[in-house]
Amino acid sequence: MIAIHLKEIINSALKEDIGMGDLTSGSIFDSSHISKGAFKAKADGVLSGLETIALAYEALGTNTEVALLKSDGDQVSKGETIAEVKGPTQILLSAERVILNIIQHLGGIASTTNKVVELLDDPSIKITDTRKTLPGLRAVQKYAVVCGGGSNHRFRLDDAVMIKDNHIKAAGSIQKAIEKVRTGIGHMVKVEIETETREQVLEAVQSGADVVMLDNRTPEEVKHLVPVIPDEIITEVSGGITPENIADYKGCGVDVISLGWLTHSVKALDISFNLK
Amino acid sequence: MIAIHLKEIINSALKEDIGMGDLTSGSIFDSSHISKGAFKAKADGVLSGLETIALAYEALGTNTEVALLKSDGDQVSKGETIAEVKGPTQILLSAERVILNIIQHLGGIASTTNKVVELLDDPSIKITDTRKTLPGLRAVQKYAVVCGGGSNHRFRLDDAVMIKDNHIKAAGSIQKAIEKVRTGIGHMVKVEIETETREQVLEAVQSGADVVMLDNRTPEEVKHLVPVIPDEIITEVSGGITPENIADYKGCGVDVISLGWLTHSVKALDISFNLK
Amino acid sequence: MIAIHLKEIINSALKEDIGMGDLTSGSIFDSSHISKGAFKAKADGVLSGLETIALAYEALGTNTEVALLKSDGDQVSKGETIAEVKGPTQILLSAERVILNIIQHLGGIASTTNKVVELLDDPSIKITDTRKTLPGLRAVQKYAVVCGGGSNHRFRLDDAVMIKDNHIKAAGSIQKAIEKVRTGIGHMVKVEIETETREQVLEAVQSGADVVMLDNRTPEEVKHLVPVIPDEIITEVSGGITPENIADYKGCGVDVISLGWLTHSVKALDISFNLK
Amino acid sequence: MIAIHLKEIINSALKEDIGMGDLTSGSIFDSSHISKGAFKAKADGVLSGLETIALAYEALGTNTEVALLKSDGDQVSKGETIAEVKGPTQILLSAERVILNIIQHLGGIASTTNKVVELLDDPSIKITDTRKTLPGLRAVQKYAVVCGGGSNHRFRLDDAVMIKDNHIKAAGSIQKAIEKVRTGIGHMVKVEIETETREQVLEAVQSGADVVMLDNRTPEEVKHLVPVIPDEIITEVSGGITPENIADYKGCGVDVISLGWLTHSVKALDISFNLK
Amino acid sequence: MIAIHLKEIINSALKEDIGMGDLTSGSIFDSSHISKGAFKAKADGVLSGLETIALAYEALGTNTEVALLKSDGDQVSKGETIAEVKGPTQILLSAERVILNIIQHLGGIASTTNKVVELLDDPSIKITDTRKTLPGLRAVQKYAVVCGGGSNHRFRLDDAVMIKDNHIKAAGSIQKAIEKVRTGIGHMVKVEIETETREQVLEAVQSGADVVMLDNRTPEEVKHLVPVIPDEIITEVSGGITPENIADYKGCGVDVISLGWLTHSVKALDISFNLK
Amino acid sequence: MIAIHLKEIINSALKEDIGMGDLTSGSIFDSSHISKGAFKAKADGVLSGLETIALAYEALGTNTEVALLKSDGDQVSKGETIAEVKGPTQILLSAERVILNIIQHLGGIASTTNKVVELLDDPSIKITDTRKTLPGLRAVQKYAVVCGGGSNHRFRLDDAVMIKDNHIKAAGSIQKAIEKVRTGIGHMVKVEIETETREQVLEAVQSGADVVMLDNRTPEEVKHLVPVIPDEIITEVSGGITPENIADYKGCGVDVISLGWLTHSVKALDISFNLK
Repeated sequence: MIAIHLKEIINSALKEDIGMGDLTSGSIFDSSHISKGAFKAKADGVLSGLETIALAYEALGTNTEVALLKSDGDQVSKGETIAEVKGPTQILLSAERVILNIIQHLGGIASTTNKVVELLDDPSIKITDTRKTLPGLRAVQKYAVVCGGGSNHRFRLDDAVMIKDNHIKAAGSIQKAIEKVRTGIGHMVKVEIETETREQVLEAVQSGADVVMLDNRTPEEVKHLVPVIPDEIITEVSGGITPENIADYKGCGVDVISLGWLTHSVKALDISFNLK
Repeated sequence: MIAIHLKEIINSALKEDIGMGDLTSGSIFDSSHISKGAFKAKADGVLSGLETIALAYEALGTNTEVALLKSDGDQVSKGETIAEVKGPTQILLSAERVILNIIQHLGGIASTTNKVVELLDDPSIKITDTRKTLPGLRAVQKYAVVCGGGSNHRFRLDDAVMIKDNHIKAAGSIQKAIEKVRTGIGHMVKVEIETETREQVLEAVQSGADVVMLDNRTPEEVKHLVPVIPDEIITEVSGGITPENIADYKGCGVDVISLGWLTHSVKALDISFNLK
Repeated sequence: MIAIHLKEIINSALKEDIGMGDLTSGSIFDSSHISKGAFKAKADGVLSGLETIALAYEALGTNTEVALLKSDGDQVSKGETIAEVKGPTQILLSAERVILNIIQHLGGIASTTNKVVELLDDPSIKITDTRKTLPGLRAVQKYAVVCGGGSNHRFRLDDAVMIKDNHIKAAGSIQKAIEKVRTGIGHMVKVEIETETREQVLEAVQSGADVVMLDNRTPEEVKHLVPVIPDEIITEVSGGITPENIADYKGCGVDVISLGWLTHSVKALDISFNLK
Repeated sequence: MIAIHLKEIINSALKEDIGMGDLTSGSIFDSSHISKGAFKAKADGVLSGLETIALAYEALGTNTEVALLKSDGDQVSKGETIAEVKGPTQILLSAERVILNIIQHLGGIASTTNKVVELLDDPSIKITDTRKTLPGLRAVQKYAVVCGGGSNHRFRLDDAVMIKDNHIKAAGSIQKAIEKVRTGIGHMVKVEIETETREQVLEAVQSGADVVMLDNRTPEEVKHLVPVIPDEIITEVSGGITPENIADYKGCGVDVISLGWLTHSVKALDISFNLK
Repeated sequence: MIAIHLKEIINSALKEDIGMGDLTSGSIFDSSHISKGAFKAKADGVLSGLETIALAYEALGTNTEVALLKSDGDQVSKGETIAEVKGPTQILLSAERVILNIIQHLGGIASTTNKVVELLDDPSIKITDTRKTLPGLRAVQKYAVVCGGGSNHRFRLDDAVMIKDNHIKAAGSIQKAIEKVRTGIGHMVKVEIETETREQVLEAVQSGADVVMLDNRTPEEVKHLVPVIPDEIITEVSGGITPENIADYKGCGVDVISLGWLTHSVKALDISFNLK
Repeated sequence: MIAIHLKEIINSALKEDIGMGDLTSGSIFDSSHISKGAFKAKADGVLSGLETIALAYEALGTNTEVALLKSDGDQVSKGETIAEVKGPTQILLSAERVILNIIQHLGGIASTTNKVVELLDDPSIKITDTRKTLPGLRAVQKYAVVCGGGSNHRFRLDDAVMIKDNHIKAAGSIQKAIEKVRTGIGHMVKVEIETETREQVLEAVQSGADVVMLDNRTPEEVKHLVPVIPDEIITEVSGGITPENIADYKGCGVDVISLGWLTHSVKALDISFNLK
């Protein structure tokens, strides 16, 4: 289903990259010159967005064959072949950069998510993304998080409520903010409260929050706060969590850890394309 | 001039993030509720894309005031205020995330570029980006590189020729590849050859390349190869250069160092927004 | 915030209606000919989408004044003036039909919703829309439901889960369907189960549904089923409810009644525009 | 030919409905799970827009088979099967709502048009639509009117002239309005005058109108006015005509009856989709 | 009203021309550097599309002043100033080429149309365009024809019927073609028949054509055929008419002469832009 | 590769031309009526854009066969068949005008370019286009120039620098303008200086221009100026060159002649379409 989004992203990226024509491949190769090629991993990681390969070739022409040896969500090791392709050399080379830019980016997100899940090593805690995504790429970035074993936080401002510091101040109290929100939203919408103190946690619980977020908390603080919150309320920690300290949150009792850097500070997964 | 691109990116990012409405701010605040707020740096860095703030507010409504205290390309220190704003609270909060996502990303590119320029500490060598950019963001990412003190490599496949391994193999030789290319391109287009051996460097020189790229070379190798290449031909190194080893390239004599990770593996610059 | 959606709808509707020019007004009036005009209700109802008036004039030019005498959500009586406008006659007349088409449609939805809320006369039950909306108009149609005193069901397939007959069959049981769903979705997403029998209601409750929908039930059936469902689970009735029988659901104990015809079978609210 | 318009409408409706993914079907079904299903009429009516089914599946993927048992313009009875389909369950269910929303709306227009044609029971009078259509849907709504046995009034402001009250006042007289119009328009454009009095009818005739519209007239008034108008001028009645009184216009001698509610106040035709 | 079309054309042309930035003006001028400039005619002609100047500057930024000394449809002599402008030098120079490309093209169409009207020197005959326009430019090209004193033929395939040779062959006869057409079209649509023989002219007349086109006829042939056609039917000549022979058609009695080359083979009107 | 651009141009041109339906062909032909047809040259020339034929039919439906007898860049003589096609008559006729408008325009550019190359008869001089193209058509117009044997000047403001009179004045001197430009641009960008005097030519040479343009020069002037310029600098003449005087430039020693009228004042190549 991610293909609806990928298609648009690929088409606009191809126009962005090709402009009025690929001067190099267009000059050197006849449009009838056919080649084989392969995408290979140059680092270990988890793959995401492999449909990009076929969709990019399709956008430029016809008669290109793509054999995927891996699927989205698969682990890949340095040196492994991801896909073998065959088609007009002009198309293979003109689409190369755009394909790599996309699958390296999404593979980077999936790989980092996967590494975090392994570092945490606690299946009772979901790792999720945030709304800190890159413009125009949210749908595919959030898809890559799932490929890496993570889960999605809200997609937008319209599918869940998150009451933060600024909202609380303006409304007067958590209680008042929730009341205002409950009158305006539908019955399918959950409400999360961002809390900074133990008092706020208690107020959030009493006000009927569906999710309580503990902002910028150490594992120890989390362990002290979670028991205060009834089981039917979901708990989330966010802020200040890095690959270095995430293992410390193992067993802290929280339901969800959300991480902005999964999508805002992505290190690309190294993948190469070579003609045979 | 970057505003033409920013506007489109901002509009589509706002639609992506807001969807059918901001349930939180839309429920808590009246549309007539006015606030002041400030964007502040939470880390040292270089700024880029600050026009985003005013453009995002404009896209959502009217009567918002933005006072920029910094400009694109400026250094900023942790804690410094970047901009002060005033307007309808709904608009300030509904646009917050999109603005931060953009200026943190562009600021991240500018800051990294700037750090690299300083690490290299050799004004005779230009630091440039590549075509390894994120889909839909190339114009603004390349702009951010310039804000950080870098320079731009080619924008697309149509504004310069880059003959790589695959092209050389298919054409038979560098000489033949260049000949084919020269008949097809206009007189305003430069031709760069990617070389992997000393022989290829010599062949590229003799074939009339405008730019010779030394692929994956150590500083020592570069120092040996550069003297082989006449002054009127521009030299470029690319591949395997990291923040850890870039200082070793100081004084190596090359004209250009191009770095894919400036734009494909960006660490966001931390910036916050708070209502006053 | 609805203006982001209205702007796009208005711009495309103006192009759809004007084509290569308004032959009538363009031939009869000079572009400097100024008129005053008024939008008036020709029937009682509730208003929605009044921003359309100013946005449509803006799309065609400048210097048009709009004084709104009513706001979205206001009751209006036959004969009352909704807005007074002044500007180039060409613009007032070329935009007339598009404005009326939009505000009559949205006013129709708001008015019907309002009538239904009054007929039901039970503030403990929310009246909501469904996904049975017209293509391209969902955001504004759902906004009009809120203007009329209703509430919104889920916006799309991505913001809430609704497990229906077809899903249950394929998964084997409600229990199994929920289990599959829970592993794939984020923690901010609610799950609703559509039930057709008392057994399904019980299974849905035991499986941990957030919302239980009673499909096609009479008020009496609802009264018997609601007590079976714990308070913390939201209950919804849908199907077979019309303006004729909705009053019978008063006091039936359900939380939500959802009505497809609020948005798929809309009767326009009659509004006229006349030059003075 | 309507497919050009349907494609755009379907693509944007699918994006509007699916957002970042169908959480329900996407979680429960494997992408390789195949089902059969059928669209059935749940009420008597006339069909329109059936191409939607295949176009929606195509937009989401491949390998879906659609067997249409009915065509646009066909009568359908409650319980009859309209189409049988087979394909990936995810695609069948994710596209279901969008398909139904479109074919129920267009079927509603075609059915109402057809009912009106039958109620009038006078083949010498054409039933036509107006410009009172929903934003973005004019082409397909007008197509549905034709499927139902109606005919189209002008498509836009650029393909025919309609001089109304406001124009006449501003120009000084019907005669002057027509003169101004005739100098500005091409020779392929017809001119219609909206008249409210017998005097205006006579003036319109003398001024060389191609079509004279009798605004808000009873059948008796029409019978008195039609003989005043020469045969080569087309006559049209509009305003105040409902399903209840349209039969009274049988034999009144007018050429055209135009009805805004065919497209602005549509009751959807009930159609269901079920997996087998 | 043409501004709706011009805006879209200008925005896409600016993106097409500027790409990722104007390297020349962007490097040489500060964004605060202000200049004055003037658009001047370098040849005699008729102007069209002058709104382009202000709209192009607006698309790139703010604070630009445009004083138009001429209006659309005005005659201009070589050396005359058309507009004086003032604003940021970067914007004036970056928009220069796009503005000139548009107003030179539209001015070329207006000037040629005007010359043809003068050569013919017969106010009883309308000069019109055809559907032989350039892709994406029809609305503005047809507007330019009107600026030059011409009139518009049909805008598209949906606003008038033109029955040509291919249609007649397939239908069996002109009579049968018209009959088929009349059942499918609305009452606001005119029908034109393209004729190649005297017999076809007679058949067209008897079949009730609204317009009869005489294809590829000399002035003498036209003079013989026009009297055969009743006054209430409009007559048109098309094909083989050039600036060299058009004067011979003066007084031939036809109502309309349509010329494809007004829009498909345009010579630009020479206009310059210079900073002061 | 030009197909990416052609597809967009064709789709928007079809919507522009067909509007809400082809009233003529849609009324006369059944959608199952099949015909054969042929595109033929009605004048001698060079072809460009022939992919348009298949792409336009595809945009309207399926099952159309296109056999191209000629390729882009081929010479064609009056009367020769260019393509034979077979498919639904409705589609063949509804797409006819759009196809002809495009291939006649591009064929016109290719043919004129070809004629100019032959008139000049000097293979040491490249004939190039300019940025004087029609809005939205630059990519395909520049492609047509190449089909005709010409070469492309810069594509946009971002792929090469052209320093003109206005820039020189503002910067103070050619030397200063180049210096400013060199600091801002990447190493893949060439710099051209437009010169009006011998002094400017010398200054441009000394300032390190890559290309020197001689503005508005006679062949004799060119012959005197070229020797002043070192071989490694490319020379270009522009301005005042017409089909009448271009032969005089043969042997003048310049590298490039650029001609705005190749794309801004195009005479269409006459091509017809007929059903068999």
